[in-house]
Amino acid sequence: MSVISAVDIFDVRFPTSLELDGSDAMNPDPDYSAAYLVIRTNARDGHEGHGFVFTIGRGNEVEAAAIGALRDHILGRNVEELLTDMGGTWKYLVHDSQLRWLGPEKGVIHMAIGAVVNALWDLKAKRAGLPLWELLSRMTPEELVSLIDFRYISDALTPDEALGILRAAEPGRGDRRARLLMEGYRGYTTTPGWLGYSDDKLSRLAKEAVADGFTQIKLKVGANLQDDIRRVRTAREAVGPEIGIAVDANQRWEAQEAIDWMAHLAPFDIAWIEEPTSPDDVLGHAAIARGVAPIPVATGEHVQNRVVFKQMLQAGSLEVLQLDAARVAGVNENIAILLLAAKFGVRVCPHAGGVGLCEAVQHLSMFDFIAVSGTKEGRMIEFVDHLHEHFVTPVDVHSGCYWPPSSPGAGNEMLPQTLSDYSFPEGPVWAAVSASKS
Amino acid sequence: MSVISAVDIFDVRFPTSLELDGSDAMNPDPDYSAAYLVIRTNARDGHEGHGFVFTIGRGNEVEAAAIGALRDHILGRNVEELLTDMGGTWKYLVHDSQLRWLGPEKGVIHMAIGAVVNALWDLKAKRAGLPLWELLSRMTPEELVSLIDFRYISDALTPDEALGILRAAEPGRGDRRARLLMEGYRGYTTTPGWLGYSDDKLSRLAKEAVADGFTQIKLKVGANLQDDIRRVRTAREAVGPEIGIAVDANQRWEAQEAIDWMAHLAPFDIAWIEEPTSPDDVLGHAAIARGVAPIPVATGEHVQNRVVFKQMLQAGSLEVLQLDAARVAGVNENIAILLLAAKFGVRVCPHAGGVGLCEAVQHLSMFDFIAVSGTKEGRMIEFVDHLHEHFVTPVDVHSGCYWPPSSPGAGNEMLPQTLSDYSFPEGPVWAAVSASKS
Repeated sequence: MSVISAVDIFDVRFPTSLELDGSDAMNPDPDYSAAYLVIRTNARDGHEGHGFVFTIGRGNEVEAAAIGALRDHILGRNVEELLTDMGGTWKYLVHDSQLRWLGPEKGVIHMAIGAVVNALWDLKAKRAGLPLWELLSRMTPEELVSLIDFRYISDALTPDEALGILRAAEPGRGDRRARLLMEGYRGYTTTPGWLGYSDDKLSRLAKEAVADGFTQIKLKVGANLQDDIRRVRTAREAVGPEIGIAVDANQRWEAQEAIDWMAHLAPFDIAWIEEPTSPDDVLGHAAIARGVAPIPVATGEHVQNRVVFKQMLQAGSLEVLQLDAARVAGVNENIAILLLAAKFGVRVCPHAGGVGLCEAVQHLSMFDFIAVSGTKEGRMIEFVDHLHEHFVTPVDVHSGCYWPPSSPGAGNEMLPQTLSDYSFPEGPVWAAVSASKS
Repeated sequence: MSVISAVDIFDVRFPTSLELDGSDAMNPDPDYSAAYLVIRTNARDGHEGHGFVFTIGRGNEVEAAAIGALRDHILGRNVEELLTDMGGTWKYLVHDSQLRWLGPEKGVIHMAIGAVVNALWDLKAKRAGLPLWELLSRMTPEELVSLIDFRYISDALTPDEALGILRAAEPGRGDRRARLLMEGYRGYTTTPGWLGYSDDKLSRLAKEAVADGFTQIKLKVGANLQDDIRRVRTAREAVGPEIGIAVDANQRWEAQEAIDWMAHLAPFDIAWIEEPTSPDDVLGHAAIARGVAPIPVATGEHVQNRVVFKQMLQAGSLEVLQLDAARVAGVNENIAILLLAAKFGVRVCPHAGGVGLCEAVQHLSMFDFIAVSGTKEGRMIEFVDHLHEHFVTPVDVHSGCYWPPSSPGAGNEMLPQTLSDYSFPEGPVWAAVSASKS
């Protein structure tokens, strides 16, 4: 038996606002950041569990405080007990009767729980000597269903239905695992499309993306209609007719405004319109979906939990579900969301980018292919070539695909040097930024 | 010209879990708490702005940290500028491009913004020498509309429609103000109905409530069906057929479960069923509303923002809208919600209780009567007789009614002695609790 002996928390920030990478209509100057935790145990194996919440700068200390509010829930606890019953562990964290008031199940506290849950999965996968996608893909349908809290989703997905989906996918697991290792999992890139880039840079990066093997790129839109028309045209001319071009409004519009705006971009053959309006607006998204058809609506990176995803599926609000590794309460809730998507026959194309989101979320898509939906049809994982060098096991993306990681763990672990260099505000990188501004 | 010279933040908690007051099916042992701020200026008038987020214990320090993340946004700012354009001030706080990631517009960060916004309103009302309800009721329709961010609600309520509602109510303002001062504003009480109380205590407190002039009481339900049937029957026998009995499930049920459960309570003539399921489940509430009709569905104390309220009104999810003074982003957003309710013809019966929620929310209902909906028909404010002695201007509730406060301010201000005695964890009250446990 071993116990959790330490929970160390870090406020890590990258001064990305000094450039224009990551700029969009709602987020003009993000400093990509992580509220980060390391779970240590007294076991002789020395394994640690790493997890994080991704933020874009100010307020990262609030997320760190929220992770701190959960520290006493796991410190000193029996590791085997927590890891053996990850479904029970999830409920124990999410249903704390006092902390629940801060959400419930949304925002700062829910993301903090996600970081802790993901750190425990990282630890569990390392102990098993497996990458997370492989660990999950080896669990039985019954074990997977036991991870899920069906509260508030049972009107759309019952435990029996979830079991049915997982059992139907069980026979083909081995074949699909082999295919995954051989074919990889398709990615698409947002690198060309940031709002701050000139048309020339957009065109050049779009061509490079195609040369790198990507079959879809994504452009930020929503600040100015005429600029958007010109930029989408520029991109279409650069990549030709065969490459998908998705656009992303980052919640900029009202429902009708989204429909009107997209009518102007529709002639350029748009792969999807992402985050057209508030992520809380299930009915608004449904109205937009009807109004922009046949262009698919995509959303999810800011969808707070499984309850809102459930309604978006019930209402026909989205055709592309973009789950995020660090927005909801971790791996468990994302498995519920994968199952909901499978039930409703909707494709999952995860949100990534930021810091570590690519490293983390690839495990979920690969697991989904092997053991849940059983398909990669129309599915791809977002990719931004940024900040991967800070991770112990950076993603392997080439030929337009993510290639399955083989290292044990969930992919969340940053280099120790990064944790100290980019520590905010006292790390050397921030000391230098501060000195250069004064 | 004056500037904001200090923003002091307090973590104040009351050890209410030592008794069973406040116990319900989801919140068995709350420690009623407030993440509290005081805004000071260098003006000679000495006025301060007080505001808070209500929480139920653990995690109150996370809310305090979130208020801290907003401190630099107002410290050193020109007070007159902030207070003259409260609509602009609201947007400035809510649309911070980095902090927005922590919500957006929900949970810990949104409630913290609400506390800051409410503290600024408290300051503005004190400077005007008026209670908040009176200050708001004297603003022109145009000034009131300028307070509102119509982003994400314009499909349900346009600025012109809001203006129309406010202008229609303008001629009767004086008469209704006179009526309010003469008649008060009806309250209802939750005091008899906590889950932890015995049947005898429930019966006795229910009779006392009627003797005190209340025409409605509320019971917590949802833990055990047979207990609920017995408790509702006990209450009905105690109060007779003329008194309203509402029930509150505190999010305990799935949609179908709510419908089935309520069928057993319906024979006792239920005034409303409150929070039957997740506050995020717009469509679930709509299904419940259809399934339990004609019993009205009530919800709102955990509804995160105007976007979710908008959808609940669009989908027919509720007949009783229970806004809360400290859940959304303060007075401005609550005015948007009052206008949405008026547009859809839904009655507003605010959530209160906790710490200071009664003191704060009464201003909104009184303003609504005078200047928005123009009616008190079927409307009442929740009342729990608890912790009012900690406020500088405690509510005046008697004869079953709230009586309009005459002191300047928004009602949020706690006594200085309370701020020090109940400071967590170092205040003397908590030192004593800690000593008694060890």
